[in-house]
Parts: sequence; C-alpha cells; structure tokens
Amino acid sequence: MSAEKNMWLAGGVHGTQVQVRFGDTDPYGIVYFVSYFRYCHRAIEEFLRAVGLPPEETFKNVQEGFGLPIVEAWGRFRRPSKYGEVLRIETRVQDVRTKAVVFRFEFYPETGRELLAEGTATLVAIGSDWRARELPARVKAALLHKT
Amino acid sequence: MSAEKNMWLAGGVHGTQVQVRFGDTDPYGIVYFVSYFRYCHRAIEEFLRAVGLPPEETFKNVQEGFGLPIVEAWGRFRRPSKYGEVLRIETRVQDVRTKAVVFRFEFYPETGRELLAEGTATLVAIGSDWRARELPARVKAALLHKT
Amino acid sequence: MSAEKNMWLAGGVHGTQVQVRFGDTDPYGIVYFVSYFRYCHRAIEEFLRAVGLPPEETFKNVQEGFGLPIVEAWGRFRRPSKYGEVLRIETRVQDVRTKAVVFRFEFYPETGRELLAEGTATLVAIGSDWRARELPARVKAALLHKT
Amino acid sequence: MSAEKNMWLAGGVHGTQVQVRFGDTDPYGIVYFVSYFRYCHRAIEEFLRAVGLPPEETFKNVQEGFGLPIVEAWGRFRRPSKYGEVLRIETRVQDVRTKAVVFRFEFYPETGRELLAEGTATLVAIGSDWRARELPARVKAALLHKT
Repeated sequence: MSAEKNMWLAGGVHGTQVQVRFGDTDPYGIVYFVSYFRYCHRAIEEFLRAVGLPPEETFKNVQEGFGLPIVEAWGRFRRPSKYGEVLRIETRVQDVRTKAVVFRFEFYPETGRELLAEGTATLVAIGSDWRARELPARVKAALLHKT
Repeated sequence: MSAEKNMWLAGGVHGTQVQVRFGDTDPYGIVYFVSYFRYCHRAIEEFLRAVGLPPEETFKNVQEGFGLPIVEAWGRFRRPSKYGEVLRIETRVQDVRTKAVVFRFEFYPETGRELLAEGTATLVAIGSDWRARELPARVKAALLHKT
Repeated sequence: MSAEKNMWLAGGVHGTQVQVRFGDTDPYGIVYFVSYFRYCHRAIEEFLRAVGLPPEETFKNVQEGFGLPIVEAWGRFRRPSKYGEVLRIETRVQDVRTKAVVFRFEFYPETGRELLAEGTATLVAIGSDWRARELPARVKAALLHKT
Repeated sequence: MSAEKNMWLAGGVHGTQVQVRFGDTDPYGIVYFVSYFRYCHRAIEEFLRAVGLPPEETFKNVQEGFGLPIVEAWGRFRRPSKYGEVLRIETRVQDVRTKAVVFRFEFYPETGRELLAEGTATLVAIGSDWRARELPARVKAALLHKT
C-alpha cells in the first residue's frame, strides 16, 4: 500500500505530491537540486505501484532474474522552491523501448500550472549478469497500458 | 497544507505514516538508523502543523525572534524494517518545560501493534542571540492543548 | 582504503574530520541533527577500518554468519555548526560487552576544544537468524586492542 | 580548509575521492543514482575551494549580491559501484559563458581508468532579485585561470 494521498493516474499521467522537508534544502532554504532527483525516484515508485508493479519487486526481482537500474537522469530547475512548500509531480512514461523505459517528470506548485522543474530518468532492464536484456513482458505491458 | 494522508490527532497522540524509500536503507535493504531520525523530524513537522504551528514559522521565526532547535535525540531500533514497508509513527508531547519540549515517537508496522522503534527529541526555545529563552506563550499553549 | 585524510588512532581514540556539505544543514544553514548521526556512522566506519575491520565485511558478514546492526543511538547538540565548517570527530569504544559494543563520539571545531556535540551508538551482534549472539572473537579482539 | 585528501588540480582538471557510505546505496548495496549527484556537488565544492572561491561565499554571496544556483544537471551511470568502494572524481569546467558555468564530472575506480559514471551541472549567476546576471568578474577569472 502507499502512504501518499492526493495521487491519481489518468490518461497515462500519474500525479503525486511531496512536501519539502528539513534536510531537502540547501543552506539558504531553497530545494537542493539533489532532492529533486530523490523526489523523481519517489514518483517512479508511486507510478510503478499505481500500474501494478510493486517497486520492491520491480527494481530488483531475483525470482524472475531481472533488475531495472537507472542509467541516465536529467533535470532542469526553473524556479526555486522553499522549505515547507508542497510540490505536485506529474509523471509519465515518455518512451518504452525493447530494453528500456524513460520516465518524464514535471514539478508544479500545489496549486497553479507554473513549471518549477522538469526531468527524465532512463531505466534499463538487466539480467542477473548485469547485461541489458529485454524488458519482462508483464513489466512492458503494465508500462504501456498504464491507465 | 500537508501532503500526507492517514494522519490523525486524538488524545494528544498524532499518527502519520512513512514509506521506506530508496535511499532510506543500508546496503542490505534494512532501514538505516539515521532514517528513523529523519522520520522523527517529519513526524514533528506533521504534529506541529496539526496543532496550528506551521513548521516553517516555528523552527525559526524571525518576526517573533525565536527558534526551536533540536538539542538532544535518542532512538532504540527493535525490529528491522525493509524497503517498501509502510511504518506508522505515533507522536506525542512527552514533556513541556518552561524552555523546552520533548517529543516521543513510536514506530509500528502499517497494521499491527509490534513496537519496531522508539525515540525522543528535545527542542529548546532560543532567542535571536541563540540563548535559551521561555517557549513563546502561543507555542506552549498549542503544544499543551493539543487535541 | 580510506578516502579521508587527517585521521589518527592513539590511546584508543580515533580522530577523523567531516566537512559540512550542501544538504547537511537545515533551511537556515545550521547542521541538521540528523546529519550528526550520519557523521557518527562515518566515524564508526573509519574506526573499524583503522582497527583492521573493513566495514563492508563487518556490518554484515554472510560468510561468518554475523551482522552488527545499530540498536540504539543518542546525541546531544550543544553548539550550532554551519555550512562549510570542518568538524573533528573523536571516536572511542566506550564499552565492549559479550554481545554488544558501544561507541562514543565527540565533535569539536577543526581547531579548538569546545565540545560541539556528543553521542553514542550501540551495535549488537546478531546471527543470520537476527538473534543476538556473542561478538565474533576476532571482532571483539580488534575492538579491545585498538591502539 | 578542506577535510579531503588525495586532491589535485592540474591542467584545469580537479581530482577528488569519495567513499561510498552507508545511506549512499540502494537497498541492494549499489550506489543510488541520487548519490552521484550529491558527489558531483561535493566535487564542485572542492573545485571552487581549490581555485580560491570558498563555496560558502560563492553559492550565495549576500555582500556582493550574487548567487550561483544549479539550474540543470545530467548524469549517465555506466557501471555499478558498491558500498565501501572509493571513487575518484575528475572535475573540469566544460564551459564558461557570460552568465553561466558548466562543470563536467567523470567517476573512476580508485585505481584504473574505467569510466563508471559521468555528468554535468550548469550554474547560473543570479542577482539578489533571482534574475540572471553576468558572472562576477573575479568568479569568472578564477574559473578560467584555474590551474
């Protein structure tokens, strides 16, 4: 189960919220760019859970012999956010390839449509030998039929 | 506003939930003891918000000339928790002194009453000169009449 | 090998340094209490390495069937430290019991003897069944004859 | 002063080391991608210090009325690294523009030349009104004449 509220999944877009916490900011009270990447991972976790892929069985699945490490990530940070603010994250699957999936993230204020930050993360399917392999069929299906 | 669900405040006990995230564990998948202290701070933030003390105006309040730094913390970690698990935190004010407040935390599984971890945190009121001072009256009142 | 400089071990006291980094502070630029616990773990890692116990084979050792989780931690934070400051940590073994070891930490400025923060951490030896067991003899010996 | 050893600056390339710590990995003991971005920030801090720009006066400088927030970051993670490993980071200034500087990072094992990870980070100069402005002349000079 998820500990988050205010989540939704519609038209392939998953929404979640994070609150900027102590320890998420730089020494000047502004969200540290590293925290956005942490928020992105949290958004992937919630997305996966929402499409029937529990993250604790999806990032590494010993029984089925696959893993899904993040091999590339990018972020642009447009407007500063501060301690205590609530950020809305919209997450979608930007691309599903044979062996990889690319997520796209957009950060907005709790209310309003100003884009605060955006990013992408690429996950590659690997086998137990750490070599790239095809995405497991059920994972691919869940990512593609995601509404 | 809060981004959390499943929160409640009754009989002076505040409940919230955290989900164990990537980056919260040790290399063996067990919650890192440091993360429990981070969860405790989050519980304080939610508690304060629930009693009408927005944390972003309470841990440091320039206008009213006070701060509330954590000067002591303690935790006992009884049972291991793993990545993906949901933990329920019960937070209460254990003691309100003239210049300090002590919070007490108990961690339970999402369902069930087995105590997983427990802890305390002491916050002292300071003035803009970093010297201890009396808790602001409205802060003290909110902490004492907390239901 | 270690990536740290300015380390020493003499009379059972191990010294190391940490620099306060972006992300280690609260929104007001003061070291977040959670970061001190993270620094303490780092000090334990360096201590263990210095007495011939590589942490990556000591916190969990599958071959020898033991683990050393932290079951209790305490900290008192006396003086605020700021982003960019260098802190000197003195670490010693406060107590070695049959099944547990207690480390004690003291934080000082880079130069000077003002105690900034102090703490303890208790590690218990467990077997592969997560039950408490005696400290492995070679671990105990290394912790006791630590100079 | 810096708490790091094994640092060097030659031909515009700055080298530093980080040790993978508890809390830096995912639940499977592999360095979490978010930690690489944290390591990159640490590398920027060390780079700035090495060229005479103390980070605590450079990321935000109230007296001179400028700040240097990170507005974009990218990373590619090629080979997994594990808890306890020492990573060597090579940092260089990839580009200095009128209002921005781009750092490039390469991660290698403690010994060896296999590229483990790489990344970039873009910092933009802003004024006290958060609007982009020219890099302060002394900052630009230090970044350009960096050997």
